[in-house]
Amino acid sequence: MRLSEIVHPNQLHGLSISQLETIAQEIRQKHLETIAATGGHLGPGLGVVELTLGLYQTLDLDRDKVTWDVGHQAYPHKLITGRYSRFHTLRQKDGVAGYLKRGESKFDHFGAGHASTSISAALGMALARDAKGENYKCVAVIGDGALTGGMALEAINHAGHLPKTNLLVVLNDNEMSISQNVGAIPRYLNRMRLSPPMKFITDNLEGQIRSLPFVGGSLSPEIERIKDNIKILTMVQNKVGAVFEELGFTYIGPIDGHNIKDLIDTFNMAHSLKGPVMVHVATTKGKGYSYAEDDKVGYHAQGSFNLETGKATASTSTKPKPPSYSKVFADTLIKLAEKDKRIVGITAAMATGTGLDKLQAKLPDQYIDVGIAEQHAITLAAGMACDGMRPVAAIYSTFLQRGFDQIVHDVCIQSLPVFFCLDRSGIVGADGPTHQGMYDIAYLRCIPNIVLMAPKDEAEMQQMMVTGIEHNGAIAMRYPRGNGYGVPLKSEGWEALPIGKGEVLRQGDDVLMVAYGSMVYPAMQAAELLMEHGVQATVINARFVKPLDIELIAPLAKRIGKVVTLEEGCIMGGFGSAVMEALMDCGVVVPVQRIGVPDILVDHASPEQSFAELGLTSGQISDRILANLATNKQRSVVNS
Amino acid sequence: MRLSEIVHPNQLHGLSISQLETIAQEIRQKHLETIAATGGHLGPGLGVVELTLGLYQTLDLDRDKVTWDVGHQAYPHKLITGRYSRFHTLRQKDGVAGYLKRGESKFDHFGAGHASTSISAALGMALARDAKGENYKCVAVIGDGALTGGMALEAINHAGHLPKTNLLVVLNDNEMSISQNVGAIPRYLNRMRLSPPMKFITDNLEGQIRSLPFVGGSLSPEIERIKDNIKILTMVQNKVGAVFEELGFTYIGPIDGHNIKDLIDTFNMAHSLKGPVMVHVATTKGKGYSYAEDDKVGYHAQGSFNLETGKATASTSTKPKPPSYSKVFADTLIKLAEKDKRIVGITAAMATGTGLDKLQAKLPDQYIDVGIAEQHAITLAAGMACDGMRPVAAIYSTFLQRGFDQIVHDVCIQSLPVFFCLDRSGIVGADGPTHQGMYDIAYLRCIPNIVLMAPKDEAEMQQMMVTGIEHNGAIAMRYPRGNGYGVPLKSEGWEALPIGKGEVLRQGDDVLMVAYGSMVYPAMQAAELLMEHGVQATVINARFVKPLDIELIAPLAKRIGKVVTLEEGCIMGGFGSAVMEALMDCGVVVPVQRIGVPDILVDHASPEQSFAELGLTSGQISDRILANLATNKQRSVVNS
Repeated sequence: MRLSEIVHPNQLHGLSISQLETIAQEIRQKHLETIAATGGHLGPGLGVVELTLGLYQTLDLDRDKVTWDVGHQAYPHKLITGRYSRFHTLRQKDGVAGYLKRGESKFDHFGAGHASTSISAALGMALARDAKGENYKCVAVIGDGALTGGMALEAINHAGHLPKTNLLVVLNDNEMSISQNVGAIPRYLNRMRLSPPMKFITDNLEGQIRSLPFVGGSLSPEIERIKDNIKILTMVQNKVGAVFEELGFTYIGPIDGHNIKDLIDTFNMAHSLKGPVMVHVATTKGKGYSYAEDDKVGYHAQGSFNLETGKATASTSTKPKPPSYSKVFADTLIKLAEKDKRIVGITAAMATGTGLDKLQAKLPDQYIDVGIAEQHAITLAAGMACDGMRPVAAIYSTFLQRGFDQIVHDVCIQSLPVFFCLDRSGIVGADGPTHQGMYDIAYLRCIPNIVLMAPKDEAEMQQMMVTGIEHNGAIAMRYPRGNGYGVPLKSEGWEALPIGKGEVLRQGDDVLMVAYGSMVYPAMQAAELLMEHGVQATVINARFVKPLDIELIAPLAKRIGKVVTLEEGCIMGGFGSAVMEALMDCGVVVPVQRIGVPDILVDHASPEQSFAELGLTSGQISDRILANLATNKQRSVVNS
Repeated sequence: MRLSEIVHPNQLHGLSISQLETIAQEIRQKHLETIAATGGHLGPGLGVVELTLGLYQTLDLDRDKVTWDVGHQAYPHKLITGRYSRFHTLRQKDGVAGYLKRGESKFDHFGAGHASTSISAALGMALARDAKGENYKCVAVIGDGALTGGMALEAINHAGHLPKTNLLVVLNDNEMSISQNVGAIPRYLNRMRLSPPMKFITDNLEGQIRSLPFVGGSLSPEIERIKDNIKILTMVQNKVGAVFEELGFTYIGPIDGHNIKDLIDTFNMAHSLKGPVMVHVATTKGKGYSYAEDDKVGYHAQGSFNLETGKATASTSTKPKPPSYSKVFADTLIKLAEKDKRIVGITAAMATGTGLDKLQAKLPDQYIDVGIAEQHAITLAAGMACDGMRPVAAIYSTFLQRGFDQIVHDVCIQSLPVFFCLDRSGIVGADGPTHQGMYDIAYLRCIPNIVLMAPKDEAEMQQMMVTGIEHNGAIAMRYPRGNGYGVPLKSEGWEALPIGKGEVLRQGDDVLMVAYGSMVYPAMQAAELLMEHGVQATVINARFVKPLDIELIAPLAKRIGKVVTLEEGCIMGGFGSAVMEALMDCGVVVPVQRIGVPDILVDHASPEQSFAELGLTSGQISDRILANLATNKQRSVVNS
């Protein structure tokens, strides 16, 4: 059987080990070719090819439910669950998603893009199964990096307390999250990996049990016993998994994650056990592609590349791109941190994405990676801020959602000087709905004691960074994924901006455009286009949504009489609402057209495609404003 | 020395054990007398009297920093840090806060009201200390219940990885959270408590070390060695704390939490060790008050009571109070769950507060308490919803903040039928800023695919519960702390409300009041008062903020021309903003006066006091509307 013929994972059932090994090579090849062309997550999937095949050969996927953590390790899963023929559309608009998605396949039983959710979800399924009196298998596959996320540990605490609830947790231990793992748990797992490999019970289970010193008499009750008494297994294993055993799990492992036969035997054994079981599988991230095995961080995820050389595909454009916001952020932070030893950059396993890896290289004492642990990151920052430090927490907008309560309870209620830097705010492109940074304006704006700002370009970002460091309270800056505009950057001597003050960029009497952050340039371009239609726009760069510069906005709004707000974020409770609220509170009752992301989930696509679909290109903005002005005029005529 | 003379904890330094024991009795007496009069948290504080005294005798509180988790266990701390004379004002407006608060005392080094934050905060302080090259001690005191919260485990994972960072974690193990603890970690701690008590190394440290078989030669280097080599201690302790040892902590314990001498000796030893150290202290919740020792759940926190009998102070009112929303919620849920086996009530250590303890008693198979683990609770619910169940997650508004990302990522993106029931939404009274349920409208409203509703009274709550169960998607209901209005309740046969439809309760042509949830009755009362001033109000009970019944609201708003919105929540991005957004989107440009909680932290006080302070009584609402109408009229005159 060829990989291309597999449309249902149960087709694996009849295959021999060597046939599965052939499929494994095909998966690897397809995986590599596809990502070389489309970009995407490379290393995670290569590491779990055998794990996926071995696991699926022991399951009936018409009944059993597998929950893959994060989802970026699930490309092999996708290739054997009916998405082979479409796999070349990976991460492209209307194509196969880069993460798991319930709508895409019945085999994506639980969607994921964020880490550490799988054990909770799978335990929920197991409890539902038991409540319904059914008996399918529920499996979570979680990486060692994701295991350090608090909710995964909450789930282990709960599952370990339920000896009657059958649940299999497969720990895909590749010794990495995106970067090197952080913390005592990964270190503990590493010690286990270094212990002698498990001499596991193969399919000659009877013989194995017979050979155990404490087994005597007739066998059949003993097989029952091994199923009932989870402790027997732990004796076999010299207690290497003591921590998980103490927490109520039957621990099996570590086993070689690239040996299909061992995997099948182990999973079959695990299925025969009762209660929560953890199978610890040692895998190699990037397995089978030497460049990826050698540089696990670099090949975690990337753009398109040359399969032969492993090098990124050369850009077709000859013009060098402007620097990314992440790069400007990191370079600026390093310069600020060199002069101000109070500054500490904190990340939660996003060192490369946020650019903080550069801070680590340059000023390791002023850098902290806490692993996948946003909640802890924020309260740790609050603790540091209590005692005179200036923590800069660089966390993607979407992941900061994990720390919402900590922002309220530990930072803002105490008014502590923590500076949140929200990378990838707004549209994220190919990563899709789980990663869109749409909600931060709304979910942060409701909290007292926080300043919220967004730069119009990378030069203003540098000024805002000084503003953030100097402000003696909670403050957050959002900035988009991708590149700046190539505006000139000062290499030092940036000055803080006055908190809560916007700027007028352009004057015109027909409409007032108030733009926030990444929508300032599109607003300016739209204003140019409006001019072609005889409409003169004033454009304000708001800079701050909280506090909002209503002293600047209100008189202009009153005089011009028509307001348009622009933001790269949800319009439900977002920047536009802030403008409306403030205008209304000072008695300026004028039409406000809010342009931003409507109340829908934004699917994966290129950022340009998403912008166009949401009506956020400068041409569309101009058209929408013209249409609205026409409607207003019509209304006025009717009303008068 | 008497307790009343202690205004600084360092005054404890010179005291003998028997003097400290006397102080302990005085603290207990004062604690009991005060809470008998004011109400508050009783059991937690009684359990840590000796722990507090023992710990503080080993610290210099002018330099060392102690972070108490949750804060409700910190009443003894408050009594010896300058708040003795004001302690009778506990939890009263302008009095001593019921939780920790930085503004109240320099000894409240980190505020807390939510659980599981202390290790993160204390580790942050320790890292700040080391960065500054200073050497004070950083201590976190955390309960065994709070230890199961994910962020505490994230912090342990991080701290255990930092062998050079001195940090003392005191585990106050009273075998309880508010209710019985849940999970494998508490069960593990309990096994440790049952192991032989630690024969700990007392202040004759040298002798102890000399007696160890592996120590030989001169002593002084050996003392250094015991400080440097954390493993020696673990040998002394027969490895009872293996899990924490594996996670990088030096584990000491369990020790008797009511023996001051043992506590002092142990803390002194712990201070001499390097890296992260955990001291496991076995305490008895409610210690020294027999009623509280016997009923640990009932005496966790309560209203005023008779010290002799332990019984609640009889209400001075002869009229029986209407049932609380929590009671109606629980009673109704039980009836619904009896008929619909898909229903499962889920709580995160709030069984008594939410009323779900009654569901547990009646239908234990349809009840889950996951412990202090909101994140897990929500994704567990999502997993159950995937497989045909109807999970009802009953979580206070303030604690749901902990699960914000899970609501977005696991429930709403996947549009799963999880029914969130947000108890204590709005003003919470004596618990203060950490517990105010102010933000839920704003932080939930920005998420696509969720229905948000709030009942005007307890009868409508019953209808909304049916609505929530029947809705095949994510849906949330917020309701206030406290009692309903005593309206007649049907004992069965409730009908679901149409999603997104409000109702007109009253008609008048001068102003349109659109009220949400708990503000509907005050709005109606205010409308009556307005009538006395010749102002006729239409009152709408919105029922839903998402989707909002704009078809009902917009024509009325257009005709009447003046809108007032009313909500018991933050007005930044809240219900009023939703009304403004929707009106603007359909071209109805009219003045909207938003009445709700302004952008400030609301301090502890009685709910009535808070309402009055925020201008939310019906009289104040009426006055504010009149004032606004006058301003509008003036503006119109000026403009015309």
